[in-house]
Amino acid sequence: MQTLRVELGERAYPIHIGEGLLSDDALLAPHLDLPKAAIVTNTTVAPLYLQRLIGALQSRNVSVISIVLEDGERYKDWTTLNRIYDALLEHRCDRKTALIALGGGVIGDLGGFAAATYMRGIPFIQVPTTLLAQVDSSIGGKTGINHPLGKNMIGAFYQPRVVLADIAVLASLPPRELSAGLAEVIKHGLVRDEAFVSWLEQNVERLRACEPDALAHAVRRCCEIKAAVVAEDERETGVRALLNFGHTFGHAIESGLGYGNWLHGEAVAAGMVMAANLSRRMGFIAQADLDRIVALLKRAGLPTMQPGIAPARLLELMALDKKTEGGQLRFVLLDRIGAASIRAEVQPAILQEAMAACTAR
Amino acid sequence: MQTLRVELGERAYPIHIGEGLLSDDALLAPHLDLPKAAIVTNTTVAPLYLQRLIGALQSRNVSVISIVLEDGERYKDWTTLNRIYDALLEHRCDRKTALIALGGGVIGDLGGFAAATYMRGIPFIQVPTTLLAQVDSSIGGKTGINHPLGKNMIGAFYQPRVVLADIAVLASLPPRELSAGLAEVIKHGLVRDEAFVSWLEQNVERLRACEPDALAHAVRRCCEIKAAVVAEDERETGVRALLNFGHTFGHAIESGLGYGNWLHGEAVAAGMVMAANLSRRMGFIAQADLDRIVALLKRAGLPTMQPGIAPARLLELMALDKKTEGGQLRFVLLDRIGAASIRAEVQPAILQEAMAACTAR
Repeated sequence: MQTLRVELGERAYPIHIGEGLLSDDALLAPHLDLPKAAIVTNTTVAPLYLQRLIGALQSRNVSVISIVLEDGERYKDWTTLNRIYDALLEHRCDRKTALIALGGGVIGDLGGFAAATYMRGIPFIQVPTTLLAQVDSSIGGKTGINHPLGKNMIGAFYQPRVVLADIAVLASLPPRELSAGLAEVIKHGLVRDEAFVSWLEQNVERLRACEPDALAHAVRRCCEIKAAVVAEDERETGVRALLNFGHTFGHAIESGLGYGNWLHGEAVAAGMVMAANLSRRMGFIAQADLDRIVALLKRAGLPTMQPGIAPARLLELMALDKKTEGGQLRFVLLDRIGAASIRAEVQPAILQEAMAACTAR
Repeated sequence: MQTLRVELGERAYPIHIGEGLLSDDALLAPHLDLPKAAIVTNTTVAPLYLQRLIGALQSRNVSVISIVLEDGERYKDWTTLNRIYDALLEHRCDRKTALIALGGGVIGDLGGFAAATYMRGIPFIQVPTTLLAQVDSSIGGKTGINHPLGKNMIGAFYQPRVVLADIAVLASLPPRELSAGLAEVIKHGLVRDEAFVSWLEQNVERLRACEPDALAHAVRRCCEIKAAVVAEDERETGVRALLNFGHTFGHAIESGLGYGNWLHGEAVAAGMVMAANLSRRMGFIAQADLDRIVALLKRAGLPTMQPGIAPARLLELMALDKKTEGGQLRFVLLDRIGAASIRAEVQPAILQEAMAACTAR
């Protein structure tokens, strides 16, 4: 097992990475205020891992309630959130009850927002079960739900007390989910670490084959990158925004296709190609860099073109993005492979060209 | 104008208290990130004060949108919260748009929770227009909405950037609302400051007559007490819980009667008498202290008996209170007039007697 820390002063917390952590009863118990916990999970994850986690908690005499939600991005809404509140109230959960999110990004976001807002905040623990959640969404305290007008529009920054990334559970992921997680893995490299991009180019097939050593390395490196960025800029007033590379386009693609049709990571992959294409058209990176990015994403099993949403519609959806400031869209563009910057001064014509070049027809 | 500060490190903020502050354009503008603000208010306050506040902002070239909600505790729910989100999205408000709550406790709680959760948090300003909001709810960052199973069950701690308490607006308050505010004024004295209780005994009629000097003194003293308590214990893990004196009973009374039938301050007044009665039965205060408290509340125009909810029902409602820990109810009881403590070890029989003694039949 390896342990990293997210250094956030009084809100600092450990990330444990390793095989079989789900059944290690020593890892969660120290983070509970009282021996009572509510596990939020979904109908896909529950049959696989819920009993294992409950067993580990009960062996420490923790009383556990389970809240099993429908699976999918379309359920990341107020109605599902309210099911969590209702269950917590029904079981008389108070301020000292810990909420444990056992699942992927949707469960982590929903569970985290419920923990942030139930009785103005209760202890929260992340047990991510997808690659995407282990390398990205479970770290850093972003929580929230979707609004009909935009993704993650309602939410809070709320840090977990501990993150438990059990590499062994990734073996049960469908290949499409694994690839979606690789999109965020590749993102961390593109934005912060060219050496890691080179490593990915050498190891992407091993990752797709779920080789434990390769997965452990990739998860650890992404967590290191993300933990350092979050420690520097918890509330995304600066450097943290760079981790949104591909996400302004990606969110618009996801929303334009209807939540749940493409996986988040798939939309981010196509969005990263758009952002890289724009970076090339603006002269920041070379065509060879763009080709290298597209090739790596393809080898990871990811789409590199969005499937035909009209560019005008994409622009409309992007105008709702949280990263606008005073009505002005801001883009995360690559300076080179391994470094990125925020740019607001983008010519509309060049933006149109980049979007058109990355749209299937 | 007098200015206090709530000392919360990087989240510290000023409270300005004085007459006519609503039209002082120098007080809000420095706290905005961009010249754009959304004012959340209600149908009662809007005709009286909305234009005045808009005028002050516009004279500084701030572009303003107004969100006018129905008035009343029964609207402090998810549906109304969603009206705020919808309006913010519709007007393309981004992370730099400030949300200004212009109104009483309900508007401050709703507006504050919207500000805490819209795009994971936008700048927030409190302009309280009731005595209750000026002396209590606008300070300290408690925000939230009600759930069908309990008051303020969903919420967040989220501090404003500035609080503007314009004493002049209190002259337009209906007498019943003014009395409800006096309940929280008296609470501050009972829990922390016997000298202030004596001052209130000498000046309660001047307060009910809206004499500006008396109001300014009472608002300032309450803000001083609350600011000090919040600075010491922002998230209510200790001393801040004492400010809930009367509120465990009060919330149950409010909920048992149906939100909006009694004002919050009225329920708190009857709840404080119950808590004081319990304090007397447990031997912490004398009968003369209890009589003194009841007399002061009566002179403030407040109820001192709850109107007939069965004690068993009250207990059931109290079991849902946020202050329970591991299923155990915890009470704020008086040690003497001017000092209080949290107590969990209360005999059920004595609790029943205290509740029965304070129930009208």
